[in-house]
Amino acid sequence: MNKAVVLLSGGLDSATTLYFAQAKGIRCHCLVFDYGQRHRREIKSAVALAKRAKCAYSIVKINLPWKGSALLDKAIILPRNKPLNRKGIPATYVPARNIIFLSFAASCAEAIGAVDVFIGANVVDYSGYPDCRPGFIKSFQAMLALGLKSGVEKKPLCLQTPLIRKTKAQIVKMALNLKVPLELTWSCYKGGARPCGVCDSCRFRAKGFEEAKAKDPAL
Amino acid sequence: MNKAVVLLSGGLDSATTLYFAQAKGIRCHCLVFDYGQRHRREIKSAVALAKRAKCAYSIVKINLPWKGSALLDKAIILPRNKPLNRKGIPATYVPARNIIFLSFAASCAEAIGAVDVFIGANVVDYSGYPDCRPGFIKSFQAMLALGLKSGVEKKPLCLQTPLIRKTKAQIVKMALNLKVPLELTWSCYKGGARPCGVCDSCRFRAKGFEEAKAKDPAL
Repeated sequence: MNKAVVLLSGGLDSATTLYFAQAKGIRCHCLVFDYGQRHRREIKSAVALAKRAKCAYSIVKINLPWKGSALLDKAIILPRNKPLNRKGIPATYVPARNIIFLSFAASCAEAIGAVDVFIGANVVDYSGYPDCRPGFIKSFQAMLALGLKSGVEKKPLCLQTPLIRKTKAQIVKMALNLKVPLELTWSCYKGGARPCGVCDSCRFRAKGFEEAKAKDPAL
Repeated sequence: MNKAVVLLSGGLDSATTLYFAQAKGIRCHCLVFDYGQRHRREIKSAVALAKRAKCAYSIVKINLPWKGSALLDKAIILPRNKPLNRKGIPATYVPARNIIFLSFAASCAEAIGAVDVFIGANVVDYSGYPDCRPGFIKSFQAMLALGLKSGVEKKPLCLQTPLIRKTKAQIVKMALNLKVPLELTWSCYKGGARPCGVCDSCRFRAKGFEEAKAKDPAL
């Protein structure tokens, strides 16, 4: 049985990615990041998802004292009800977030002997983050082939991005087919008892469920 | 005055890199990693060096619970008095260490508006770590150009490796010219009051001083 590391944020995309990998018969080890995000609600969701999927998981605590993002710094206001197709990189961009997450995933993969890393990056209904684009992923994989022992001594580690070119509606349908426990997922950038409904992440999710003609069980 | 992030481990190479950047008139922000290494002696050295150089610094605490290296796991024996030119990747290799360190450096650089990241990676008198080689550095920089906001919106972040093709003797001479306070540096993989003298890192350093016909002030 092949082993893989799965980046699990607790949101719709990463949960669907985890269930996709498991459906392929892969033994998954989930990484959950506690990186100083605005709220801990998504960490709770990620842990609940890993447990429900009966997966091993590690919570990786990291510290980005330089902040530089609305997701790390409560003094910066989260965009609310902004057009989702607007140009530019929003205030919720965290400098090098996926670069850091994938670096830890590579370290973990090498230490536990995993051959793949799964990430729910997506470039269709997304916020314009540069580190979600296919070209970035390809380039990260090329870098890993040179920088890891596995790349030098055996087969380079592979980054798997099953959602990269799917719309949110397609991801919702995929999640429903894979029986992802969507009620456990959390996409909202804000914390609190219920999703805010007005941040970019809530609105992309709502758009996905609407277009898939499905009800969001987390609401 | 240009700003740069400098990876500072507390050893000879990173200290020389810091003084090299400062001599170019660059304002440096040092990153010191507390990553679960066998001892805290090198962290103490790194902080002392940053203070002596009157640099801003951040201590980044990270957690690699999967270990996978003699530098993280005291159950693995450190190589002692082994041939320095032996083939293969030694037990002191930490999976994805420079990949992780450079990822944090990229995040910090973007948040503070630095245009360069300096790393003391070296590929001549070194231990065969894949993430010290010029091809890896080049590939990491190409990945950053795609994954960071700076790469999309303005000038990509630059990785600077002033020591990459120097011998240890050349690095020692460079350090002496730059008046690096070598007595503050710590290269030994073991902790303790004095360097062990038999680990690969101590022996590369001793070879460097010997070939440079200089006395190591840290001994």
